[in-house]
Amino acid sequence: MTPDTSPAAPPRQRVLSGMRPTGALHLGHYHGALKNWVRLQSEFDCFFFVADWHAMTTHYQDHADIERNVYDMVVDWLAAGIDPEQATLFIQSRMPEHAELFTLLAMSTPLSWLERMPSYKDMLEKNREPATYGLLGYPLLQAADILIYKAAYVPVGEDQAPHVEVTREVARRFNHVYSPDRPILPEPQALLTETSRLTGLDGEKMSKSYGNTIAMRDAPEVVEQKIRRMPTDPQRMRRDDAGDPARCPVWPLHQLYSDADTQAWAAQGCRTAGIGCLDCKQPVIDAIKKEQEPWRERAEAYLSNPKQVHWIVEVGTERARAVARKTMREVRTAMGLAY
Amino acid sequence: MTPDTSPAAPPRQRVLSGMRPTGALHLGHYHGALKNWVRLQSEFDCFFFVADWHAMTTHYQDHADIERNVYDMVVDWLAAGIDPEQATLFIQSRMPEHAELFTLLAMSTPLSWLERMPSYKDMLEKNREPATYGLLGYPLLQAADILIYKAAYVPVGEDQAPHVEVTREVARRFNHVYSPDRPILPEPQALLTETSRLTGLDGEKMSKSYGNTIAMRDAPEVVEQKIRRMPTDPQRMRRDDAGDPARCPVWPLHQLYSDADTQAWAAQGCRTAGIGCLDCKQPVIDAIKKEQEPWRERAEAYLSNPKQVHWIVEVGTERARAVARKTMREVRTAMGLAY
Ligand code: SF4
Ligand code: SF4
Repeated sequence: MTPDTSPAAPPRQRVLSGMRPTGALHLGHYHGALKNWVRLQSEFDCFFFVADWHAMTTHYQDHADIERNVYDMVVDWLAAGIDPEQATLFIQSRMPEHAELFTLLAMSTPLSWLERMPSYKDMLEKNREPATYGLLGYPLLQAADILIYKAAYVPVGEDQAPHVEVTREVARRFNHVYSPDRPILPEPQALLTETSRLTGLDGEKMSKSYGNTIAMRDAPEVVEQKIRRMPTDPQRMRRDDAGDPARCPVWPLHQLYSDADTQAWAAQGCRTAGIGCLDCKQPVIDAIKKEQEPWRERAEAYLSNPKQVHWIVEVGTERARAVARKTMREVRTAMGLAY
Repeated sequence: MTPDTSPAAPPRQRVLSGMRPTGALHLGHYHGALKNWVRLQSEFDCFFFVADWHAMTTHYQDHADIERNVYDMVVDWLAAGIDPEQATLFIQSRMPEHAELFTLLAMSTPLSWLERMPSYKDMLEKNREPATYGLLGYPLLQAADILIYKAAYVPVGEDQAPHVEVTREVARRFNHVYSPDRPILPEPQALLTETSRLTGLDGEKMSKSYGNTIAMRDAPEVVEQKIRRMPTDPQRMRRDDAGDPARCPVWPLHQLYSDADTQAWAAQGCRTAGIGCLDCKQPVIDAIKKEQEPWRERAEAYLSNPKQVHWIVEVGTERARAVARKTMREVRTAMGLAY
């Protein structure tokens, strides 16, 4: 058999996912999204982007630190194991093509599709600021982000599933109106992935705005201190009181980080007052420190050479731009605007 | 006095105006807008653009003939006397920068500013199609068109004045949020200009959709025929009946095209049945034919060399792009997105 008759490997299908630039990431980001990205990158042609325009739909007044936040976040992506040789990393705001597709899709997207989005209704209720045109259009900008790369899959949590659905509707309508015989924008599939929602230091959801996070790059002694200071079962006031893991914010960390034996040891020790809370916390501390080790190593390598990070983003942005431009040529042609 | 001490001429202030690509223009376009553009071009740094994205906000399904419509229209601009050496002619859809500014401005523009626009309410009432996100955002896209060139003036009819007003509000808010100490986007002024709304062949407003137009490049014999067939005062059934110019669709054409003497002759001849309607129409026919002569000459020169028209648009587009890019650099920097 000669080499040229062997079938080429089928091209990997494309996955698109973005993250708002909130600065240095915490364990919640890792277990909620990044870990999954790392898993996906070898199987799919992954495009991961910094959603800095999206950040502006809700926080359009915090613009001083965006750049630092962007690069802190990208360093954490790389630290987590995102491999720039496998995945394409880029920045949304460097892509006027997204804005162009957003603008063109706006022309054929009924207002009602956007007004009925649960995320929009939600934000209307929470925000004290008046709703902006950009906030209403957020899912349409997201649709443009996805469709411009003809992504086959979009990893989402359940709350984001309606956004993928509206993206599919937008694509369907575009194809129907402008290119009924040859669909141009494929409808992406939601990739519902198993992710863990991490509890923070206070038992609430881990979130920067609650100040209850462990950063991916927190130093070992900081991690140690944060966890040692974590509140535990409030009914376990003294060492002698028996406790109940179900009432303890530390327990979810055990469930994520400890093996079955350690969990059994902790639960039994807690219920019988056989161990103290600091004893109980130690395996969690050790597990997090161990998890962080490779992150810290990679991050240090990148931080000692910040130009490399910029270069990775630069290369990724140009790679993404080539795809985006090709789609836009097809879109303009279909719309009769290719002159 | 040495030449280098003489003060430089102050830079001409910029005027921005766009026109939807409806194809070959008619006398209504000329007297309603183009004549004014020709007047403005020597006094101001005029940027005139083909608003092809805007055409899609209301006619997003007519995409087959856009290209022909665009170039037919540009030829008529040139025929009317727009001088590409003085004015910058370009095509909106060739400027992803407009879409980028539109997207960024969307983030800080309250929905309510757009929902209350009279033009939006109007279209909601008229259109049977559901309102689209693009239709609602039309004045914001227009604001981006204007602000990206830092236009000092926007020539508008009275019905467009609210659009300039919202552009000013959008600029004010952007400056306030992102660059309070050094405004980046100047607030444009409306340039209310005296224009004539031309009556069509049937006495209604001249409009392509009413089929009552005289095209700028209608052949002389077509003009002659169209006007000879125009209805006149319905009470002047026979040559002997006296008429009243106030009831006659031909009269507005006299008011636009005839001098005082001719008008007096026509009015008196009509009221006394001293002249026939064909007599009365002849000076109008002659005046329009005469007006068209230089248009036809210029148009023929351009049509014999279509590449030249494309080249004019190409040069204008690049000239506009340089300005747009400069503004976008400032905008991105102010928003903290210049990385
Ligand atoms: S022993 Fe462990 S699970 Fe029980 S209260 Fe203390 S920290 Fe929580
Ligand atoms: S004479 Fe002139 S103004 Fe009078 S009805 Fe005829 S066309 Fe009209």
